Order: sequence, then structure tokens, then C-alpha cells
Amino acid sequence: MNKDFLYDEIANGIASQIRNGVLKTGDRLPSVRMLCQEHGIGMNTAKRVFLELEAQSLIDSKPQSGYFVSRQRHRELPLPDVSRPSLTANDDEPSELVSKVYANMGNKELTLFSIGAPSGDLLPLVKLKKEIIQATRELGEGGTAYEPLEGNLKLRQLIAVRSLAWGGNLHENDLITTAGGVNALSFCMMALGKPGDTIAMESPCYPGILQLALSLGLKVLELPTHPATGIDIEALKNAIPKINLCLLIPNFNTPLGSCMPEEHKREVVALLARHQIPLIEDDVYGDLYFGSQRPRCCKSFDQEGNVLWCSSISKTLAPGYRVGWIAPGKYKEKILKLKLVHSISSVSIVHEAVANFLKTGKYEQHLRLLRRTLQNNYENYVRAIAEYFPEGTKTSRPQGGLALWVEFSKDIDTAKLYELAIKQQISIAPGRMFTLQDQFGNCMRLCIGLPWSEKLNLKLKQLGSLAKTHYVSG
Amino acid sequence: MNKDFLYDEIANGIASQIRNGVLKTGDRLPSVRMLCQEHGIGMNTAKRVFLELEAQSLIDSKPQSGYFVSRQRHRELPLPDVSRPSLTANDDEPSELVSKVYANMGNKELTLFSIGAPSGDLLPLVKLKKEIIQATRELGEGGTAYEPLEGNLKLRQLIAVRSLAWGGNLHENDLITTAGGVNALSFCMMALGKPGDTIAMESPCYPGILQLALSLGLKVLELPTHPATGIDIEALKNAIPKINLCLLIPNFNTPLGSCMPEEHKREVVALLARHQIPLIEDDVYGDLYFGSQRPRCCKSFDQEGNVLWCSSISKTLAPGYRVGWIAPGKYKEKILKLKLVHSISSVSIVHEAVANFLKTGKYEQHLRLLRRTLQNNYENYVRAIAEYFPEGTKTSRPQGGLALWVEFSKDIDTAKLYELAIKQQISIAPGRMFTLQDQFGNCMRLCIGLPWSEKLNLKLKQLGSLAKTHYVSG
Repeated sequence: MNKDFLYDEIANGIASQIRNGVLKTGDRLPSVRMLCQEHGIGMNTAKRVFLELEAQSLIDSKPQSGYFVSRQRHRELPLPDVSRPSLTANDDEPSELVSKVYANMGNKELTLFSIGAPSGDLLPLVKLKKEIIQATRELGEGGTAYEPLEGNLKLRQLIAVRSLAWGGNLHENDLITTAGGVNALSFCMMALGKPGDTIAMESPCYPGILQLALSLGLKVLELPTHPATGIDIEALKNAIPKINLCLLIPNFNTPLGSCMPEEHKREVVALLARHQIPLIEDDVYGDLYFGSQRPRCCKSFDQEGNVLWCSSISKTLAPGYRVGWIAPGKYKEKILKLKLVHSISSVSIVHEAVANFLKTGKYEQHLRLLRRTLQNNYENYVRAIAEYFPEGTKTSRPQGGLALWVEFSKDIDTAKLYELAIKQQISIAPGRMFTLQDQFGNCMRLCIGLPWSEKLNLKLKQLGSLAKTHYVSG
Repeated sequence: MNKDFLYDEIANGIASQIRNGVLKTGDRLPSVRMLCQEHGIGMNTAKRVFLELEAQSLIDSKPQSGYFVSRQRHRELPLPDVSRPSLTANDDEPSELVSKVYANMGNKELTLFSIGAPSGDLLPLVKLKKEIIQATRELGEGGTAYEPLEGNLKLRQLIAVRSLAWGGNLHENDLITTAGGVNALSFCMMALGKPGDTIAMESPCYPGILQLALSLGLKVLELPTHPATGIDIEALKNAIPKINLCLLIPNFNTPLGSCMPEEHKREVVALLARHQIPLIEDDVYGDLYFGSQRPRCCKSFDQEGNVLWCSSISKTLAPGYRVGWIAPGKYKEKILKLKLVHSISSVSIVHEAVANFLKTGKYEQHLRLLRRTLQNNYENYVRAIAEYFPEGTKTSRPQGGLALWVEFSKDIDTAKLYELAIKQQISIAPGRMFTLQDQFGNCMRLCIGLPWSEKLNLKLKQLGSLAKTHYVSG
């Protein structure tokens, strides 16, 4: 067999294992000697394989140690611009793109880059089933009775314990369970906003939150937001006289992936407390950090009970279980009343099952694995984007979460790209979905919560080709 | 043994079996001859037993057939008055009694006449557990994924089929699932009312519905309501210019137990359609008819899609599962949008389990048994009330449902009765809870969804004594 062919074939095989995640960031590769034995090749051929992979930035060599899958195996793309929304609160209907894209969410034929939750392949389904069965057997009256209004006690205790990791020091009585994270945000907005009020948010922002605000008659003030450090504090300061409420996703925001530095969190909490403006903190992505430490929450700087910390397991464990919660600070009575009036009780079986899952430590174990997978995905996405997407593409650099924000050059319209991509069974979330204004037309959000595979790599390549072919004018 | 003692003892034994439900309405009693053999007594003593029970109206004799547990085994009490609320819409805070009474709902030490759902003892808990386990095993991704926005298809198909029983002719696409009945009403009110609008309701009305309306900034117009035939149609006609929305519980309304005649339903539907006022129909009690036929729904007369028919399994099967639905007619898009924005998805495991339970016919079987039990309870309650409660007590005569409305003479204050009763471990729902106005102070609602027992009989006796001793002035 031709030596050139051999070396190429072996290099491609390893490259593919890296791209589809069989080999992960930091994994050690076989030694030159082992490669020779494994494939029946000479030392020179084996060395050419490693040189080729190094040239592609897929691996690094470490003296005296060998070759490792590279952490920085992509050329670094520039960050997207800080957003510059118009600073006028508005309640325009969101783009019709939103319902169009959502309508495709259940379509298993599509590659759903548009989705906002982790794929079922990344969830501990078998263990969860066991917990449901166990909960059904053990709960009084089989879970057919209403729970206490505050929600499952065991679950609240465990969430309180876990709050230590982000600087919270919650007690079970500080918490109220809800039917998922959106239900938590819905209660907070209902409790604290009245029609005509203005709520400040990051821009771009999750469309579900924009629509939630509109459905309650609130006006939305979108504020400039940095792709790495989150909301622009000066802009928030200037907006204070105009706003009644503020909602932030400080940790691994969707769609940007931004994470506010601690100093920013402290400053925002103090600023809003000073002006008696409640802060709704959506922390559903906080546990999905890529680094070694969970970021703190705004709630950890809350001296006055002015922060309503909301979270759920929908982005980490089981979206369909609808298990979320609020630590509502001084607004507890209002939230309790709304929960009673609008839902009476959570579904006790799923809440009990999640409580038991958390109790055994299986949740921490699952999160460790999920975080590693997401980080690996992120690196694969960014590498593929650098390789396949048009010149001038920028991406956010999330240090956690499920979202990657992609900004094309101005002449690429992602609403049109959506139409082309869907014909190739690819669904993306165009940037225009994430605002009530006319902005982000050249941006899109990609979900990194799909299991990496050669197919996914190919789909990103297709997407890049579509963007290149149809839109880059010059 | 003394004959007098014997006859008394045997009669009391049978009376107790009737009161605690071992012997049910229509059951045949042993013959005179069998009673003689069983107790070793003479024919005359046996006959005295039956005469005594007949005198207490507990049994009837049928010539050539024997003795049967009586259907009319209570003296008929007069009906409560038609309500006469003030005809001004208002948004006053509901009585603080509401939260006081609700706070006791989970207290297992109490006899909860105040509750609005069937007791767990009347539910098919073992069969439901099996369905949950089955659903968890069979659902794709173990139920961790989001459902389609409309909700579980199988469940919607089965509800559509069942709608034939009440004159509906629904298709699965006419239905949207929700997290219980209250969630259904919440979406309807949010979709169709805006702050400052006026919603017309029956008076007295379920406090949860009053609070729901207030929480959305609506004003409530309480309308005169007949304890047997429901809302006063003339009053509704006169109110038309003042209202934007109407919510009715036409079948076995809580707290009155009233059921609108078909002609009233037809007329109300036409009236509201003519004036473009949406009708929210809460039909959670419709399946709990005592007679032989399920009453029709307003929805069955709806030509224009103006009726939003809401129901659930919370009053019949499993309150804690939070499984409800809406047939929203022409308002479907609005409701779907709200469901997406406020809850994203129902909890698929419980919805799938309920769908499977309905599919096997177990639900019809369960309902037949539950209806018989509730009817028997109703008769026992009314008998006990006639026997133990003060002169002048009136009760509604529900032909289905879970609620019995009791009206004392004007000098009895049920808010004070609540305080006295709770000391004896008895919780009632005072009438003042069921209005935003100052009315029904001498009324209360009793739940007939508790399993009948000698203890329950005793608790009603205690309640009657409290009312007699402390309040009847003369």
C-alpha cells in the first residue's frame, strides 16, 4: 500500500475521532512506537501522522510526555460587537421568525441547532426513570395529592445546600418550587410588574422572556450587552429612571454566553436595591461552567431581599419534568399567593424524583460529565466555524452554558440563511428572534447541547457553505 | 337478655351500617326470617327492628320484596335563597378567611369539610401508580423531553371521544392540555381579559377563581345565582353592557352544587355570542353526576367558537398530577401562545399516564364507583344535617359534584363557627370566602368527597351542636 495514502488515512482517522468526541480535549494519543505497531508502519510515517495533526492544531506535543488532544485546536475568532439597541422601551410584536423556528422544535428529522436545551442523549435517562418509579411507590397517596404550597421540602433543602457553591446561603424557607424555570420567571414578572411598566433586559435576549414580558403588558428596554461580560452597567445606570423591573441572566446568558464578573454583579445588585427596582435573576445555566468553579450569583450579593433568584433543572437534567424554583427574597408572600392562585401545586412525582436524584449525589456526577461534554462541544463548534464559515465571522467565547452566538459580516441575513438551511434539514435560531427591535439580522445562536459527531461537523460545514455561497458579496 | 335491649341494639347496628355506608341506598336488607335466625330472636322482635328503622326513614318496605335502604332517608330541608349580591363590579381583596382556611388544607389531623377535592381514599391509587411506571418506561426519552405545544396527542384524542357524552363533538385539534384546571382558567383569563376589564361570575363563587381574576387586574361582577338552576339569566342580560368576559361553572357548581338546565345553557351561549363576550366554562365537576346521564355543557351549544371549555381530572382522579385541558374555540392561537410563553410544556409523564388510564376504560369504571359513593355521601350528609343542625338550616340539593351549600338562619356567623370548629379538629369553608362582598356570613360549604364513616357522622353532629349552642338566639 502506498505510504502517502497510509499516513493520510491514519491522520484522518485520528482527526475524525477528535472531531466526533471519541478523543477528548486533553486525552493522550498513542506513542509513535505504538502507532507503528498498531498499523504496521515505519517510524517516519508515524511521525508524519502526528506532524499533520499538529499542523491542523488538533494536537499538541509535550516534551517527554507525548501527544495530547489540543485545548486550543481552533484559530481564535474575534468576539461579536457589544450590542447597541435603541434605548427606547417597546412592546412591538416579536419577529414572526420566533413561531416559525419554534414550530420546528419537535422535528426529529432536523439537526436542531436552534434548540435551547441539552439533547436527550446527554441526560441520565435510565437513572431518572428509576427515580420516578421510586417516587411513585413511596409518595403518600402515590403523588395524587397536592403538595404543600411552598413545594417539596426535600427538594428545597437540597437546593439550599447547593446554594453554598455560588455564594448563596439559602434556607429551605427561602425557596418556592415552580413548574420549571419559565414558570418561575412568569410568577416574578406577574408579582412585580403591572401593565405599562418597563422591564430592563440584556440585548440580545431569550425570545421566551421577551414574549413573557409582552404577554403581561410590560414594555421591554433592551440594554447594550458585552458578549463576554454581560450587561453594560453604565447603560443600566442611565436607564434607572425609566425602569420598574430588571431581568438578567448573569451566568452563561443565552444567546450570548456572557458571564458577568463578580464586581459587576455586586454593583448591579447595589444599584438596583438603592432604587428599589427588583432584580429577577435567571440562573438556569449557572451549573454548566466549563472552568473549575461555579460562578457566583447576583443573589449572593443581595443584602435586602431585592433579588429573585430563579433556576430549574430544565437545562441540566430533564426539561420535560418542569421542575424549577425561586428564592424570592422579600417578595415571598406575593409569589406564594400567585403560585396558589395560578397553579395550586407542582406535580409532586417529578419534584420528589428530582429531589431523590439530587440527594444521592448522582446529580453532581451527571453535571461533571455534562460540563465536560459541553466544553468539548464548544471547542469542536468553534473549530468547525473557524474552518467552514465565511471570513469575518465572529463568535462569542462562553465559559459555560448551552449557547454560542455567531455574528456574520453585515451582508449575511440569517433569516434567509434559516430558509436555506431548513431545506438541508438544519434549523438555526436567527439573531432577529432575540430582540423586539431591528437588530442582529446578521447573527444567530447555535445550541452546543447536541452530542458531537461527524454528522454534526458535516452539518456545520453545510451551514458554512450556505453562508459563503449565498451571501458573501465581496 | 332483655327483649327491649335486643331490639334496640340490632336496630342501632343496622342504622350504623347505613350511616357508615356499609349498607348503601337501594341495598336489600335481610328478611324477617333471616334476622330471626341470625340473632336468635322471635318474629315480633325482628319486626320491631324494621318498624323502628322505617320510623327513622332509614329503610322502605316494598310489598312482596322486603326491606331496602331508603333513598329519601332524610327530611327534606328547604333550599337556600337565591343570592342577591350587589351588582357593582369590584376588586376588593378577598376575605382573610381564605388564606386562613387554605393554610389548614394539608393538616391530616383535621376533618377537612373545607377541602374541594375528593379524598385520596376514593381514588384508584394502585392502578394510577402502575400507569405512571408504565408511562415512564414507554415514553421516548423517559418523559424528559418537551411535549408538542398542544399537549399529549393520545390524551387529546380520548378527551375528544369522551366529549360525545356531553353533546360535544370535539376533535383532538380542538384541545390544548394544561397543568390542571386552574392553569386552564388562568390562560383563558389572561388571553381574553386585560386589567380593568370586568368578568361576570356566579355568586357564590370558588375563591380560587375570584383571586385568579384579581391577580390579573380584572374586576369581578358577582351575579344572582339560584341554588338549583345556576346563574340568573335576567341578571346576566342586564349586566351585558358592563362586562367583557363571563366565567361559569354550569355543572354542579362549587359551592352551590347548582346545574343549569339545558335551555339556560343554550340561552346564555347565544346571548354572549351575540355580544361577543367570551364564555369561560369550567366543567371540572361535569363527570360527577348522580343521575343516569351526564349533563350537557355550554360548549355543546357553541356555534361560533365563543366558549372556552375547561376541565381536568383534579376533581375525579388525581389532583396532584395537574392534568387539565381547554377546548378554546376560536381563541386557540391566543391560548397556545400563552401556554408556550408561560409554561412551554406540560409534564409528559403524568399526562401520558392519565391518557393510558382513560384508554383502558378504567376511568369509566372508577367514575361509576365514585359517583355512587358521592351520591351516598350526599344523602348521609343531608340526613345528618337534618338531624343535628339547628332549625331553619337550608341546604342545596346538588345532583352531582363535591359541594354542599348550607345556609343557617341569619344569626349564625360561620366565620365564628369556623373558629370554634377548628378547636374540635373540624375545618369548614365559611360562606364569606366565596365572595368579594359582604354576604353569605351565615353560609358554609361542606365537601362531600370524604369517605363516609361513623366518625364523619359524629363530626357533623359536633358541628351541628356548635351551631346550636353558640348561635341560635331564639
